[in-house]
Amino acid sequence: MAAVSKGGSVSMRSMASKTPVGFVGLGNMGSPMAKNLLKNGYPVIATDVFPESCKELQETGAQVVDSPAEVAEKADRIITMLPSSPNVKEVYTGPNGILKKVKKGTLLIDSSTIDPAVSKEMAIAAEKMGAVFMDAPVSGGVGAANMAKLTFMVGGVEEEYHAAQELLTCMGANVVYCGQVGTGQAAKICNNMLLAIGMIGTAETMNLGIRLGLDPKLLAKILNMSSGRCWSSDTYNPVPGVMEGVPSANNYQGGFGTTLMAKDLGLAQTTATNTKTPIPLGSLAHQIFRVMCSRGYANKDFSSVFQFLREEEGQ
Amino acid sequence: MAAVSKGGSVSMRSMASKTPVGFVGLGNMGSPMAKNLLKNGYPVIATDVFPESCKELQETGAQVVDSPAEVAEKADRIITMLPSSPNVKEVYTGPNGILKKVKKGTLLIDSSTIDPAVSKEMAIAAEKMGAVFMDAPVSGGVGAANMAKLTFMVGGVEEEYHAAQELLTCMGANVVYCGQVGTGQAAKICNNMLLAIGMIGTAETMNLGIRLGLDPKLLAKILNMSSGRCWSSDTYNPVPGVMEGVPSANNYQGGFGTTLMAKDLGLAQTTATNTKTPIPLGSLAHQIFRVMCSRGYANKDFSSVFQFLREEEGQ
Amino acid sequence: MAAVSKGGSVSMRSMASKTPVGFVGLGNMGSPMAKNLLKNGYPVIATDVFPESCKELQETGAQVVDSPAEVAEKADRIITMLPSSPNVKEVYTGPNGILKKVKKGTLLIDSSTIDPAVSKEMAIAAEKMGAVFMDAPVSGGVGAANMAKLTFMVGGVEEEYHAAQELLTCMGANVVYCGQVGTGQAAKICNNMLLAIGMIGTAETMNLGIRLGLDPKLLAKILNMSSGRCWSSDTYNPVPGVMEGVPSANNYQGGFGTTLMAKDLGLAQTTATNTKTPIPLGSLAHQIFRVMCSRGYANKDFSSVFQFLREEEGQ
Amino acid sequence: MAAVSKGGSVSMRSMASKTPVGFVGLGNMGSPMAKNLLKNGYPVIATDVFPESCKELQETGAQVVDSPAEVAEKADRIITMLPSSPNVKEVYTGPNGILKKVKKGTLLIDSSTIDPAVSKEMAIAAEKMGAVFMDAPVSGGVGAANMAKLTFMVGGVEEEYHAAQELLTCMGANVVYCGQVGTGQAAKICNNMLLAIGMIGTAETMNLGIRLGLDPKLLAKILNMSSGRCWSSDTYNPVPGVMEGVPSANNYQGGFGTTLMAKDLGLAQTTATNTKTPIPLGSLAHQIFRVMCSRGYANKDFSSVFQFLREEEGQ
Repeated sequence: MAAVSKGGSVSMRSMASKTPVGFVGLGNMGSPMAKNLLKNGYPVIATDVFPESCKELQETGAQVVDSPAEVAEKADRIITMLPSSPNVKEVYTGPNGILKKVKKGTLLIDSSTIDPAVSKEMAIAAEKMGAVFMDAPVSGGVGAANMAKLTFMVGGVEEEYHAAQELLTCMGANVVYCGQVGTGQAAKICNNMLLAIGMIGTAETMNLGIRLGLDPKLLAKILNMSSGRCWSSDTYNPVPGVMEGVPSANNYQGGFGTTLMAKDLGLAQTTATNTKTPIPLGSLAHQIFRVMCSRGYANKDFSSVFQFLREEEGQ
Repeated sequence: MAAVSKGGSVSMRSMASKTPVGFVGLGNMGSPMAKNLLKNGYPVIATDVFPESCKELQETGAQVVDSPAEVAEKADRIITMLPSSPNVKEVYTGPNGILKKVKKGTLLIDSSTIDPAVSKEMAIAAEKMGAVFMDAPVSGGVGAANMAKLTFMVGGVEEEYHAAQELLTCMGANVVYCGQVGTGQAAKICNNMLLAIGMIGTAETMNLGIRLGLDPKLLAKILNMSSGRCWSSDTYNPVPGVMEGVPSANNYQGGFGTTLMAKDLGLAQTTATNTKTPIPLGSLAHQIFRVMCSRGYANKDFSSVFQFLREEEGQ
Repeated sequence: MAAVSKGGSVSMRSMASKTPVGFVGLGNMGSPMAKNLLKNGYPVIATDVFPESCKELQETGAQVVDSPAEVAEKADRIITMLPSSPNVKEVYTGPNGILKKVKKGTLLIDSSTIDPAVSKEMAIAAEKMGAVFMDAPVSGGVGAANMAKLTFMVGGVEEEYHAAQELLTCMGANVVYCGQVGTGQAAKICNNMLLAIGMIGTAETMNLGIRLGLDPKLLAKILNMSSGRCWSSDTYNPVPGVMEGVPSANNYQGGFGTTLMAKDLGLAQTTATNTKTPIPLGSLAHQIFRVMCSRGYANKDFSSVFQFLREEEGQ
Repeated sequence: MAAVSKGGSVSMRSMASKTPVGFVGLGNMGSPMAKNLLKNGYPVIATDVFPESCKELQETGAQVVDSPAEVAEKADRIITMLPSSPNVKEVYTGPNGILKKVKKGTLLIDSSTIDPAVSKEMAIAAEKMGAVFMDAPVSGGVGAANMAKLTFMVGGVEEEYHAAQELLTCMGANVVYCGQVGTGQAAKICNNMLLAIGMIGTAETMNLGIRLGLDPKLLAKILNMSSGRCWSSDTYNPVPGVMEGVPSANNYQGGFGTTLMAKDLGLAQTTATNTKTPIPLGSLAHQIFRVMCSRGYANKDFSSVFQFLREEEGQ
């Protein structure tokens, strides 16, 4: 798919041929994402704070450089995939950051999941340098990243959306335009908050039903044909034995770690606090996953909340 | 549909022809349910504590008698539809209750939504008199009752299920066998608890997203294609303007009142307390709807929790 | 202290001399309470469902009989101390219960902690037999029971309060008249709910302060001279090392078990549900202690909630 | 009291005579605080973003200047009293901020209530300029500020504490040294979080007790002699008629506004999120006050949570 930017202001950025794409952050997610750019014929200029993270991508054909600033010298489209807000600040505005060397008209796409307020800050800083910043966090895990099946939620000026989409479709199956800068993050955070609430709710409900004498498969079936239905009940049921191919069928290995869910709920809480928005269930969900992290569930899939709540007294 | 009981023990109850069916409780729900029995050719012997509630049904052809005991003298299949646990206790075990005059082998079906522990008590009391008690609470409101589109969740001995099903299919579109006595109530309570959690979660999430700059229709669309999807987001969205034909499109008129949801969550809380089951989100959902009842939302649809949470400071 | 009943209606009950007092329920609490009646010169007629529980008291001089009914035949003042509502119902209204043989004018004092609605039921049943029922739950544990240092919160007709007080002062240091039947339970439940909230709040606050770099002793001192002060911060601090002589100084041994607190919060929840009273923090406190019971904290002092919340990630 | 700094490093700051003290932020709190410095004989150099806020202080004898930077040119001890973290950042590190012109060795005392992480940032920025930053948030409202009865909780290097204390004792009755920079904020946040929990807990408990038939004054008395006792029950009871001289006796006028409590709980939430500390009751308290702000309680005293929870159905 070859979308073309409608925005004349960034006309210096070459779109016609596959010019190099910069990539900062080669972790579990970033590395397969960058590979999918290579597979689609884009030269990749990459860097990471951990040099060893770059080796595999280098062998696959990417050019590895020393700093985000250097990436910015060599590419006018750059994707970043980093663990948290402070990393994003450092990579963009730090002493060796992208904005130190960014060329006018460069398209900056941040796929990290961070506070939308930080996305807005970065967008303002980028604009001062004549560059364009968009937030494009993903849903889907390492498996989806490998298979280019991620979903991207994109925030930023609409004129640049098609330019971003050209690259994002190499790495994902769905690309959704959400609105102004920060709304990609907002959509991601909102979805994961509701997911967290639905999962804990499903775990409580299944546990209560089992205690009251209901067969778990039957209960799931009843919920799924009724108004209790949700993604956690019909697609990712947390009770072992109800579904196959989900973490609950595999001792809560794989999937989406409790610690990652707690991080996303922390972002939801922070944005809610800053906007004075009440989120009573979202807050409590945050606290529950936070306690679970302290009680040995940090690296289990977040559906292990069923196990956390279930255990019988005396056991 | 003419199901036949497999159980020899209740052979005295005549199933071949349409012998009279008793009905106790002719409120908003019971009255249309009894009418649907009449429509299906069953003679109905009915009673209610409020004589005026009986008039309409009497005009439609039912025989009205003075007490549940009298109903029990004249019918060997009886359906009860009452507001709460104490009413059920009174109608079954009170001085003029069904069990005072019940015939051996009578099939007793209680469609009230009550504590499953009370259902079990009634079943034991009925068994002492040689009768069979089943719980069969409904989902669906007055509209569904009128159109015979209710869903029945049935608990009780499996041998009697088909006998119950014969009558319930006259009044509902779905009849689900859930297991031993009380499991019908359990299924109902579990579904409504998860529904309540999903609704508040959806309201919080939509509100947060809107505050963060997302268009509500777009946010609903994103949630519904993602892991945040639930019945409250895709079928009964609480945000005015997102969907048509739901209470949020009509100032939260109609639908399922907050006070009724609070009642069902009270039952969920009581069964959870009695079985020592933790339900942190279910408990908080209960408290939120309880506060709403005190703040003027008692008779609005329960999706008005969006309105309760949304209002801006200073307004 | 020799209080005299003002009520003429129960004049058949002999008060002048120390006539026998009945006692039903000789568990960890009941046994030392009954002993304190013996120490004060009252003959005691006692029973318990577990005969072995009676041995020690028998050796101390009590007459042991076979059933509550038999106690009622031999004493016109009876104290009951039982684990929960169903036990109280059985002991009063069961086939061998007190009310089967109770004499007119008998004073019945129930020191169990139960649902005040059950207390009211028992009072009505007693009144039908011409007896007087009062609820008088205690605060203070086994140690206070041994040393006759319990606090009794008493509900019932005011005319009988002094008759009750005569006996209760043998077993406790404080006897407080609360109002009509059930208000003793209400006071007990209310106190323990606020205690539970204060304890979890103190644990959260101390944990947060420590994480933020505050010395726990200093933080406790600051709270205790400020508006954060509460019994849990100044008398029973949950952080090891802050105070001596409290369970937190002894690995949370002794004290008031988490499972008992969860039971009392269950009662608070049930009375709140039944009276449609919102208790958001009380509900959440209930859920937290309930989860703790499932995670190995059932028999530790309830101040171990600090330990439950504290554990570091990765441990 | 004439404390002398032990730290040689800041010896340039003159302590022997009453040299000018800078003051930034002349709002409801800052203005009376600055006046108390004047009363104690300290010349004051003051500024505020709103020139009209400066008039009264100017008439009392203070020298008013145009910016924080100008204050920093003229005083080597500066106190700041600002509404929130962004204001503090602006006043210290903005284009006309204190640090633009600060003299080496200057003592900077911030009495704003803000995120301790921001206090630490400011301390680092100050240190780079050779100045010393301490956080010293207050408890006590406008009345206490007028009467110099505030409590200051102070964080920062211990050597400078006495120098800070010299000034703070002019404005407050208690000055408590809490530890490294940020711990003053931490102590303030912790106290207010526990206060919020205790207040809501007291409101729920009193409401439940009243519904169960207890007299509110009697219930307060029982709680206050028992383990439910807390500052909100014994000093600031939220139930009208229980105590005199508190906001509940005056329709919740005056006191500490719900919106201010919500702000402090937002800080508690943010610090807890950032340090991965679970605060389940603190979070829920935050959400409750946040909802109250949306429902018309923003400017009432925070003890109006009793009124928020109390209202009867149907009213």
